[in-house]
Amino acid sequence: MTLNPADTAFADTLRAQLPDDMLRSPEPRHLEEPRGRYAGQGGLLALPRDTEQVATLIRAANAARVPVVPYGGGTGLVGGQISSDGPAPLILSLERLNRIRAVLPEENVMVAEAGVILADVQTAAEDANRLFPLSLAAEGTARIGGTLSTNAGGTGVLRYGNARDLCLGLEAVLPDGQIWHGLTRLRKNNTGYDLRHLLIGAEGTLGIITAAALKLYARPARSGTALLVVDSPAAALSLLSLARDHMGEMISAFELMHRQGYDFLNETLPKTRQPFVSPPEWSVLIEIGTPGEIDTGAALETLFAAALEAGLVSDGLIAQNAQQAQDFWTIRETIPEANRLIGSVSSHDISVPLGAIPEFITRATEALNALGDFRINCFGHVGDGNLHYNVFPAPGKTRADYEDQRDAVKRLVHDLVHELGGSFSAEHGVGRIKVDDLERYGDPAKLAAMRAIKAALDPKGIMNPGAVLRG
Amino acid sequence: MTLNPADTAFADTLRAQLPDDMLRSPEPRHLEEPRGRYAGQGGLLALPRDTEQVATLIRAANAARVPVVPYGGGTGLVGGQISSDGPAPLILSLERLNRIRAVLPEENVMVAEAGVILADVQTAAEDANRLFPLSLAAEGTARIGGTLSTNAGGTGVLRYGNARDLCLGLEAVLPDGQIWHGLTRLRKNNTGYDLRHLLIGAEGTLGIITAAALKLYARPARSGTALLVVDSPAAALSLLSLARDHMGEMISAFELMHRQGYDFLNETLPKTRQPFVSPPEWSVLIEIGTPGEIDTGAALETLFAAALEAGLVSDGLIAQNAQQAQDFWTIRETIPEANRLIGSVSSHDISVPLGAIPEFITRATEALNALGDFRINCFGHVGDGNLHYNVFPAPGKTRADYEDQRDAVKRLVHDLVHELGGSFSAEHGVGRIKVDDLERYGDPAKLAAMRAIKAALDPKGIMNPGAVLRG
Repeated sequence: MTLNPADTAFADTLRAQLPDDMLRSPEPRHLEEPRGRYAGQGGLLALPRDTEQVATLIRAANAARVPVVPYGGGTGLVGGQISSDGPAPLILSLERLNRIRAVLPEENVMVAEAGVILADVQTAAEDANRLFPLSLAAEGTARIGGTLSTNAGGTGVLRYGNARDLCLGLEAVLPDGQIWHGLTRLRKNNTGYDLRHLLIGAEGTLGIITAAALKLYARPARSGTALLVVDSPAAALSLLSLARDHMGEMISAFELMHRQGYDFLNETLPKTRQPFVSPPEWSVLIEIGTPGEIDTGAALETLFAAALEAGLVSDGLIAQNAQQAQDFWTIRETIPEANRLIGSVSSHDISVPLGAIPEFITRATEALNALGDFRINCFGHVGDGNLHYNVFPAPGKTRADYEDQRDAVKRLVHDLVHELGGSFSAEHGVGRIKVDDLERYGDPAKLAAMRAIKAALDPKGIMNPGAVLRG
Repeated sequence: MTLNPADTAFADTLRAQLPDDMLRSPEPRHLEEPRGRYAGQGGLLALPRDTEQVATLIRAANAARVPVVPYGGGTGLVGGQISSDGPAPLILSLERLNRIRAVLPEENVMVAEAGVILADVQTAAEDANRLFPLSLAAEGTARIGGTLSTNAGGTGVLRYGNARDLCLGLEAVLPDGQIWHGLTRLRKNNTGYDLRHLLIGAEGTLGIITAAALKLYARPARSGTALLVVDSPAAALSLLSLARDHMGEMISAFELMHRQGYDFLNETLPKTRQPFVSPPEWSVLIEIGTPGEIDTGAALETLFAAALEAGLVSDGLIAQNAQQAQDFWTIRETIPEANRLIGSVSSHDISVPLGAIPEFITRATEALNALGDFRINCFGHVGDGNLHYNVFPAPGKTRADYEDQRDAVKRLVHDLVHELGGSFSAEHGVGRIKVDDLERYGDPAKLAAMRAIKAALDPKGIMNPGAVLRG
């Protein structure tokens, strides 16, 4: 079925139904993505102020068969927010739906519109002495609607789950323009198919999330941070298991880092304070957060002693104050920037079953060494089985020197991930960039079901065409 | 589209493709439900041994347009497992798919087939020094496939979530007979629509779950139990909030009980050990489970003192040993049996936003008192906003005396729940009994989307027809 461009005639149709200031030409930011690798095409930008206006826009787009690209904070890394071919789209930005409708600390619930920036959600929770635990590098720009549409992850997943796990209810506009009023604040509600979880992670292809009821948590009264040196990824997994025996769900983060990350920081951002004189081959950043009166420092000391005793760690630092804790986190959080400055040959946001992490790292590294001369920076949320396994040029070379090898590198990594029962996209989603991967690695029955669902809910294919499923 | 009965011709078709001992006449247990209120019709019973055989059965049923009723442990309370009209169905029992395929303690994962009994999942986890936290009264009979299909809840939801939250991956046979191999053990996997969450809670209307990858947890090293007397449901909510400040996610259960429950126990099961000489109007059973070295008794003492200080509790008992803890739990767990012995006029498995619980209880009770002479037993998982709000005959009367009022009672309760933004089925699901409620209270856009999804995935309507959506 062919789609039509968001042309002047379509704009006139919209202007007849909506306030004057709602339609614009897209700004450059609506046509770019964070890594600057793909350029979007122009089109018509709509800036609705409320859910009814979103519904009006979608009904008009549906009637005119005009493609709609939903736009949140624009921080996605897989091109889900960027359309570069097909008829010029209606880019529907949620940035004006930016009200926090309710904060209910006694219920541990917040109701926020899709355009609220993630950091503002966190702050509003903090102001009510609560925690909204979703945290990721782009939180100052990402908006909660996009965060949910892509089921974003981040550093808090180990303890609190990903975006999906933090959502109690949704309000959304479906592809036919109907508003689904599903903004319940209920912890339990078994009344039919879970449309919420279908829209979360659908990356705007099944409708537009306009507001969400979010889960809040008690703020941990105390936190503790340690940076422990482990012999190997396998030792890191055993350390995680030991830490869980000691501290159960109080572990807030468990991040694995390879020496390459420290080296890249030294090379590109030498002012970063390095905690070790000589960077360890493998290290783990562990954070715990506890309620009440539990002494986090003592708990980490006990864990460290037990891990030394068990031969799992050989060295380590326990933060003695907030500044030291921040320094440890700065290492972890600055690695992506160092990576960007080096310039990767190919980056991979993969997950494998926890038990397969050591085998994955060993085999992927051996195979890449056989393929060519690379530097590999492997780091990530190891407690979730989620590694950012990124491949970089050898010293003195650049990304451009490896143009011919990029596809082979990606294929090698993703094939191995698939063989081990893993995922080629752990937290970034499919967007437009990984549609081929989904077709290659996705389960055929699941793909058929996805296509049937897409055709049933969006028979004209107007919602974010080309994302997730081929248009 | 008309369906055909599972007649002898259809049985012959199946016998040509499958082992001899797979087909039988249904036993009485396949045609009854726990409360004995609805009788199923006969049909053909299939007892497949593996997923391939399930797929063969579904392909044959699809080709012949024969309705399929999936059958797990038969413990559902809303008739989802019982077909009483339409052409005689193929009853597909998963009881022989009862293997635990893997227990992976270091990953905190178990892979179990649909027919494994819930208690056996718990035991297998325990044998690996892990916890599978889903716990409910029917756990000795319920099977994990049905538990997931109905997104069962129970007493552990507050801390660990419901069945949905405990599932990492699924294997399922879709209505066209294709097997979806989605049995991943991944904590993060953003590769397309979440078919898992669509099948969970679909009550067998979109396919048959054949196996699941389940989340395990560290076993709390210590637990503590207290029974605290609160002035009102509002005080119970404030106590929950205070307890969270003190103990965060270590709270495993927070159950509200009304005096009526204790009185029913005295009346019907007088041997039950009663903890209070005079049952309190409202009380809360709280359980905490902690890792490592935390002293649970001291933690509960501290909470109790703080709650006394804040005027939230007036009395209370902290279990001094395992027997006392068990006694407290026996009260809570025996209330449903006492209710059954009294015989309810109408039972309601409802949820409302936490903040609306006091208003709901006050207004529902006032309205019922205006309607007639009832006894009300209100108890449940108040931390989840989930109340079992059950209405009983006045002393000396029986259920039969209220036949004329049952519908009015149910309507009154459900209307109020709906007005307060709640759910008419918090954990039991829709089944066949609550289809009318779903049509009355369900969001029209959601219902339209559900029907479109059902038609897309099961165009012939063979999967559990009449459940969830009208056939």
